[in-house]
Amino acid sequence: MNVVLNGRRKYFLTVAFDDKHNSVLLINQKLLPHKFEIVSTQNYIKTAEAIKDMTVRGAPAIAATAAYGLAQGAREFKGNNVEKFRQHLRVVYERLASARPTAVDPVNVMKRIIKAVSDIENVKLAQKTALEMATRYSDNSIAECRAIGEHGAGLLKDGMTVLTHCNAGWLACVDIGTATAPMYVAKERGVKFTVFCNETRPRLQGASLTAWELAQAGIDHFVIADNAAGYFMRRGDIDLVIVGSDRIVARTGEVINKIGTYSKAVLAKQNKIPFYVAVPFSSIDWESTSADGVEIEERAESEVLGAWGIIWNAPGIGTKKSSNANHERFVYVRTANPTSHARNPGFDITPPEFVTGIITPIGIFKPGELWKNKKKFEGKF
Amino acid sequence: MNVVLNGRRKYFLTVAFDDKHNSVLLINQKLLPHKFEIVSTQNYIKTAEAIKDMTVRGAPAIAATAAYGLAQGAREFKGNNVEKFRQHLRVVYERLASARPTAVDPVNVMKRIIKAVSDIENVKLAQKTALEMATRYSDNSIAECRAIGEHGAGLLKDGMTVLTHCNAGWLACVDIGTATAPMYVAKERGVKFTVFCNETRPRLQGASLTAWELAQAGIDHFVIADNAAGYFMRRGDIDLVIVGSDRIVARTGEVINKIGTYSKAVLAKQNKIPFYVAVPFSSIDWESTSADGVEIEERAESEVLGAWGIIWNAPGIGTKKSSNANHERFVYVRTANPTSHARNPGFDITPPEFVTGIITPIGIFKPGELWKNKKKFEGKF
Repeated sequence: MNVVLNGRRKYFLTVAFDDKHNSVLLINQKLLPHKFEIVSTQNYIKTAEAIKDMTVRGAPAIAATAAYGLAQGAREFKGNNVEKFRQHLRVVYERLASARPTAVDPVNVMKRIIKAVSDIENVKLAQKTALEMATRYSDNSIAECRAIGEHGAGLLKDGMTVLTHCNAGWLACVDIGTATAPMYVAKERGVKFTVFCNETRPRLQGASLTAWELAQAGIDHFVIADNAAGYFMRRGDIDLVIVGSDRIVARTGEVINKIGTYSKAVLAKQNKIPFYVAVPFSSIDWESTSADGVEIEERAESEVLGAWGIIWNAPGIGTKKSSNANHERFVYVRTANPTSHARNPGFDITPPEFVTGIITPIGIFKPGELWKNKKKFEGKF
Repeated sequence: MNVVLNGRRKYFLTVAFDDKHNSVLLINQKLLPHKFEIVSTQNYIKTAEAIKDMTVRGAPAIAATAAYGLAQGAREFKGNNVEKFRQHLRVVYERLASARPTAVDPVNVMKRIIKAVSDIENVKLAQKTALEMATRYSDNSIAECRAIGEHGAGLLKDGMTVLTHCNAGWLACVDIGTATAPMYVAKERGVKFTVFCNETRPRLQGASLTAWELAQAGIDHFVIADNAAGYFMRRGDIDLVIVGSDRIVARTGEVINKIGTYSKAVLAKQNKIPFYVAVPFSSIDWESTSADGVEIEERAESEVLGAWGIIWNAPGIGTKKSSNANHERFVYVRTANPTSHARNPGFDITPPEFVTGIITPIGIFKPGELWKNKKKFEGKF
């Protein structure tokens, strides 16, 4: 998507591949929203580190990064010995897979690439095939997000206010995003609307990443405290909610997503506001029988007991010259009582009765109707 | 309540009067939870400043501070000229009333004191009466909170987890608090329970002040993101919710309280969890016909776009020696995208159908039954 740099718009993907230098190009999300920087990873080990240290985040973006990282690692191999090449590829895979062990998408795509090259007896051809597959995966991911946008854009009408939670935007994907895709397509179509971004404590992805994205796209938006969403819904100030999802259980229609999603869904139903969930194919779980078996990760309590930001009254903040200084002033502050502890579930489960529809790349489905439409999704996952 | 200082428990009131030095003693809430300090205001002008700059906060605490400030100002007057004394008292009143112009409780109590001394022809006696009335107001406030605690304590049973929002604790009152009062009394009675404190964005009074209070009292507690309350409710991890209120409209039972209260009430009802609101007499509004006419203040957007805290990795944080250093490191960090704006409503309205009961100093009422029990409250407001 376009990023505004020094007043000019320039197109970037969240994840791209630099063929000439055999490196993966990533928007450094650790510095956003305060600094825009492209990281070029020199080798697959650096790519794995970028996954691990959250330079890149969001399941689709991580999967594309891992796919490119595998191709990058494949291309680092010198010589024609196919056996040694395959051993090397296994090492590359292990390194990339262990960078974010709970994510399933990167493992799936890497396994597919390894399988495809496993009977190619020519190293050069195998290397070429690995990169082609990674590129195709990335292109498909963009096309899926674009299709979500095309199907969802009709939900947005002139004058509407849309609420979103966390960041299911283009920074979490290769481009366009999932929850944001209908917004970007509606914007292209000339629809005038406003977005409310829940700040999304504890990690504040809404206030930092989604708000940054929308600002780049020139979409009217306001950050709100997570506490304020219900207030605005009850006043009739919110017309539509669109969120992403880490996993939808197809059999039941349960939505697993960032903590706070369930609360917003209950409030939306209470106030008769449509609540949509936008997902790529890879987030639809056709295996599980219910969300009960899915473990909800409890994350570090420091996330709840404090916050990250830049010291705001520091001189020169926001000017071009001090962009390095801004970065250096990125700090963690303790907001809570120093002797207290926290509980920090990362995700919650929203039952299907609170969800109006699931926006997929092949259309919008009621959450209870995913399973009976399984055939339509065949070959897509 | 007891505060733990260097491992020893010492009893403090949020607001007290130092007769000998004619000063008001206040816990400096701007420094909590990172530093405990008592401010002694030298004269009524300093007392007004302490109200204005949020050294003291919470309607009951501000009202007691204003009452003592008025008595303090009265006692600053030298001589026996009653006319001049009354003029002086008017000046003192105006100064204290304008320190927090939207609060109604300080104005009410100061008017009552002025009325009572208005026909006393002896300056010394008028000064003495003003201080006696201020002291009585403060004592009554403590007694009211204690009574709320006695009525509400029975709601807490062994093994329960109670959720609270914002700070309706003893720091917001003269002592004991409103929402916290049932917890403190239950603790005295030996009931074992756990409190979940919503951190309460944007100003984080739950994470900072309520968690600090509960830590002093040795009550088991965890800070949670406001987003996580629904998750814990749905899992059955929360048995009871108790919050305070800035204003309950007696005719309708509507509860006006800190932003986020409405959301928690809707989630509690959805999950069949009792939701109680604890209030002193002064928060019950017998005049308004509905909450619709009450203006909901929108506060500064900087509250949502950032957070306050201390830089946590600074050397010596948390140790006794560096308590001054901690204070100096209190910073505001920008957490949100620098070019984005925010909406920041300070309060919301919870309709009575989401409220199980109102805990008052004379017992627990259903929200719809306050009005028909008006007689029981007569002379109390």
